Amino acid sequence: MNKIKLGSKPMIYPMPVTLVGADVAGKPNFMTIAFIGVVNMNPAMVAMGANPSHFTTRGIVENRTFSINLPSKKMLEVTDYVGLFSGKTHDKSQLFTIFRGETKTAPMIEECPVNLECRLVEKLSLGGTDDLFIGEIVQTYCAEEFMTNGKPDVEKMGSFVFTMDDNRYFSLGKPIGKAWSDGKNFKSK
Amino acid sequence: MNKIKLGSKPMIYPMPVTLVGADVAGKPNFMTIAFIGVVNMNPAMVAMGANPSHFTTRGIVENRTFSINLPSKKMLEVTDYVGLFSGKTHDKSQLFTIFRGETKTAPMIEECPVNLECRLVEKLSLGGTDDLFIGEIVQTYCAEEFMTNGKPDVEKMGSFVFTMDDNRYFSLGKPIGKAWSDGKNFKSK
Repeated sequence: MNKIKLGSKPMIYPMPVTLVGADVAGKPNFMTIAFIGVVNMNPAMVAMGANPSHFTTRGIVENRTFSINLPSKKMLEVTDYVGLFSGKTHDKSQLFTIFRGETKTAPMIEECPVNLECRLVEKLSLGGTDDLFIGEIVQTYCAEEFMTNGKPDVEKMGSFVFTMDDNRYFSLGKPIGKAWSDGKNFKSK
Repeated sequence: MNKIKLGSKPMIYPMPVTLVGADVAGKPNFMTIAFIGVVNMNPAMVAMGANPSHFTTRGIVENRTFSINLPSKKMLEVTDYVGLFSGKTHDKSQLFTIFRGETKTAPMIEECPVNLECRLVEKLSLGGTDDLFIGEIVQTYCAEEFMTNGKPDVEKMGSFVFTMDDNRYFSLGKPIGKAWSDGKNFKSK
């Protein structure tokens, strides 16, 4: 075993990059979140870790709704900006064109190719730096220009990802395989 | 608003691709998991959604340990194979070289560039298809060949990602930005 021990590191590589939104004190606010993942197929649910000091988390708890917005790489600078500055000192309500869905209180970003409108199911303390927010996705939005055969297409979306510790953003490369399919060839080797 | 409503979709794009391992009935078993994300910085924790019928989940509950192994794109076929077939009918204990850490009961895959050794903190029912597993990362392992300046490097790791619904795997592209940095340029425009 030639592996080096790095200690306890939050390194599920690579991580998604999302802009999570909520109304706080009557205005849309956003935070940049990579500590997030899908955790349930049906109903579709997400789990997110966020420091409770983040301004956006106030709105999530108050309204019990939030949005997850997936930015394109064209939006890299503004996405990073949202993560650098708190809504306590920087008004982020004018950064994006906002639209709303059935929950009314989850501000969504028109410029982002895909938007997930969520209801807060539960907030749990993990006894650490971040609280765990579990959300149910009540509606998914995508503009037609980012879809192929009726499905969101990360190539058209210009998706990008994040790695923590070296703190870099990466574009996606090319499709290299088909899930629930390529593994059928494995045993024949 | 020119967006199309797609219904409730688990679409945090793109998703990581991981091989999650546990000892089941005395043998290492693995499942391919994309419903997973970091949810706490300190102590480092993950949240994972997995259908309780998966063979591997038995071992996670029994031993209260599991591993998260990050495959390289060279391992795409075997990674997809692991997701296609259940340990109930297919013995996956010989697919990889196994090593173990301090927990002893979390089988880790030597061939994967990065391994996260986890203790189960909590298992919650979400009232849906999947159960929520919250794990604390007790140790992280990486071979030197996959690191740059002492940190795991996704370019050397050959990381790849997944999109659900169109069920494709994608390689990563190039570094396109620096986190907690590029956003400082945003306002100057």
